[in-house]
Amino acid sequence: MPNANHQIALVQNPAGKFSGSDFKLKKTPIPKPKKGQFLVRNLYLSLDPANRLWASPYASYTPPVGLGEVMRGFTVSEVIESKHPKFKAGDIVQGMDGWQEYAISDGVNYNEEGKVDTWNMKAVVKAGLPISAGLSVLGTTGLAAYVGLLTTCHPKRGETVLVSGAAGATGSIAGQLAKIKGCRAVGIAGSDEKCKILRKEFGFDAAINYKTQDLDKAIAKTCPKGVDIYFDNVGGDMLNIALTHINDHARVSICGAISQYTTLEKGIQGPSNYGYLLFKRARMEGFIVLDHYIKDRDKMVADMIRWIKAGKIHYRDEIVNGLAKAPKVINRLYDGRNMGKLTVKIGEEPAAPVKPKRKAAKKSAKKPKRKAAKAKRR
Amino acid sequence: MPNANHQIALVQNPAGKFSGSDFKLKKTPIPKPKKGQFLVRNLYLSLDPANRLWASPYASYTPPVGLGEVMRGFTVSEVIESKHPKFKAGDIVQGMDGWQEYAISDGVNYNEEGKVDTWNMKAVVKAGLPISAGLSVLGTTGLAAYVGLLTTCHPKRGETVLVSGAAGATGSIAGQLAKIKGCRAVGIAGSDEKCKILRKEFGFDAAINYKTQDLDKAIAKTCPKGVDIYFDNVGGDMLNIALTHINDHARVSICGAISQYTTLEKGIQGPSNYGYLLFKRARMEGFIVLDHYIKDRDKMVADMIRWIKAGKIHYRDEIVNGLAKAPKVINRLYDGRNMGKLTVKIGEEPAAPVKPKRKAAKKSAKKPKRKAAKAKRR
Repeated sequence: MPNANHQIALVQNPAGKFSGSDFKLKKTPIPKPKKGQFLVRNLYLSLDPANRLWASPYASYTPPVGLGEVMRGFTVSEVIESKHPKFKAGDIVQGMDGWQEYAISDGVNYNEEGKVDTWNMKAVVKAGLPISAGLSVLGTTGLAAYVGLLTTCHPKRGETVLVSGAAGATGSIAGQLAKIKGCRAVGIAGSDEKCKILRKEFGFDAAINYKTQDLDKAIAKTCPKGVDIYFDNVGGDMLNIALTHINDHARVSICGAISQYTTLEKGIQGPSNYGYLLFKRARMEGFIVLDHYIKDRDKMVADMIRWIKAGKIHYRDEIVNGLAKAPKVINRLYDGRNMGKLTVKIGEEPAAPVKPKRKAAKKSAKKPKRKAAKAKRR
Repeated sequence: MPNANHQIALVQNPAGKFSGSDFKLKKTPIPKPKKGQFLVRNLYLSLDPANRLWASPYASYTPPVGLGEVMRGFTVSEVIESKHPKFKAGDIVQGMDGWQEYAISDGVNYNEEGKVDTWNMKAVVKAGLPISAGLSVLGTTGLAAYVGLLTTCHPKRGETVLVSGAAGATGSIAGQLAKIKGCRAVGIAGSDEKCKILRKEFGFDAAINYKTQDLDKAIAKTCPKGVDIYFDNVGGDMLNIALTHINDHARVSICGAISQYTTLEKGIQGPSNYGYLLFKRARMEGFIVLDHYIKDRDKMVADMIRWIKAGKIHYRDEIVNGLAKAPKVINRLYDGRNMGKLTVKIGEEPAAPVKPKRKAAKKSAKKPKRKAAKAKRR
């Protein structure tokens, strides 16, 4: 093991999209775990729209990343050395170990109360799913769809669910969960190719290309009974137009506002049509997926694995090789150029992290494996 | 009975506040009820902030009032002649019989499904409360506070409830309901006199004069534990600033947006800080009080009467004499010049609408009677 930990620190708050000069590559010695800690080797790093929010000087549900600090990020990692009672060398864990090759963890990830523990991904390994899924369909992105749609909005059979950013890692899952619950799912995305994938691969009933279609007319056409649930990843004009299509007692789930993240310094566009919440006796609600990890992660992951194996949930991982590429590829999220979960591969997976029992290996879903493999080839 | 029905029709959509030329006085013959109908003589007319919304060309939860039509309004009336099985001459009813002296009703008031029936105010008469209370504390304005605070937000003991438009007919009740539920109640109003009344008469723990104080700092000072429930009558900057003070799992109840009603044509100001709903896992929800009449009016009215009699709910009716004054005095709502429920007296109350039993008469709350009398003298 080389004694060098390559890290990427945030050194200035971005103006607009991320630029190379916002980050600095650092090389530090690999740290040693003390009692109650463990050392991880990061394998995969999650790039998420909210990263831009964290890199701004503004506090949101987390404090901003301090200048000079290693950039914050969700990770899937291998435990290398442990002095922590709950983790042992060889464990595959999902944590928040940042833009670096190695990290020391005390098993607690960030949230305001420090309650979100590092997740030992035994269930994923046992199910034979790719461990990178711990950042996508089974990670914060996929489970944000679960919490934001199922827990927050309680979709009922026959309702219409409209999803913005529908080709994204969260939106694509939200649409499929809507279908599982017997709803009509309509997705909004930024290209005809994405719209085709929404319909063909993710099973949306209809898709809208907001770049080429009149959004207002297109929502009216694809949601002829109005919108009962709007799952919003985008904010801005899209949220504002969608609000005019909500039905009585609609639920608007605020997952994110990607259209606003790169122009935070200019101020956020508020939804001037929020009065529809009154006219339609409707609600708009935000959620933080981490809050629900504490109580419900095991159940949510078990549900998702079951639906993946039953072919009801499909997902795409877009995996880019090499930590050093993170500062550049992250802008794909704000350009709408990514398709599926944008993930950076930092290190090679261990040859056989856990030996699955023969039976489990046989049962393991082939589709996700194929997809992950395909994604890796890009 | 003279055979003339004085009416006020809307003849143009207002620009800004209401102006005299938006209305036209009309004189038509008093209509005759057919089978299934009854004739009412209007006694009191409710002037409400939302009237401006109804007079705009924009649909909200009701269609706009058509030009040339009698202006829409809630009323307390005496049934004069009835061919309706549920109403008889002498009944005091609350309906939506508009800006006119007489009206024909089929016992159904406006809502989208036509489900809100005219309310036979027996409980109010029996309780010995002034029948004008059927438009204020026991009418849509007071019950909007009930639905918007209790039904929509579920206040818990010890929480902080911030109310905008707190000296208004709805806001003042919302603050008192918050106190009944064991919350800290903080009100925002537009004059030192109103702030004093909020504290001394309505029992708010603190009051903010938004015209002379820095609202952001004043909220921070008067809500040291943050805001758990924000009951919003105002919208605009006030809503936007309040959002930055909400706590985790806060509820924002959208009752109205009076700051926006007279500038509808320029567009509504959207709350750019709606992202706090996400950061704070909070919800913003609208409601229409009429929806809750169908199922819960009797219970809500009984609760309110009980609290009034126990001295826990105080209210003010600002009663102006004469239908012809309605077009002018309604602007008091948008100037912030009214204090309490703005009501127009259209006709004299019948000498003894119902003879209360001696016991009921003795029990009747003295305070509201005195207040109503005081208000009438203005």
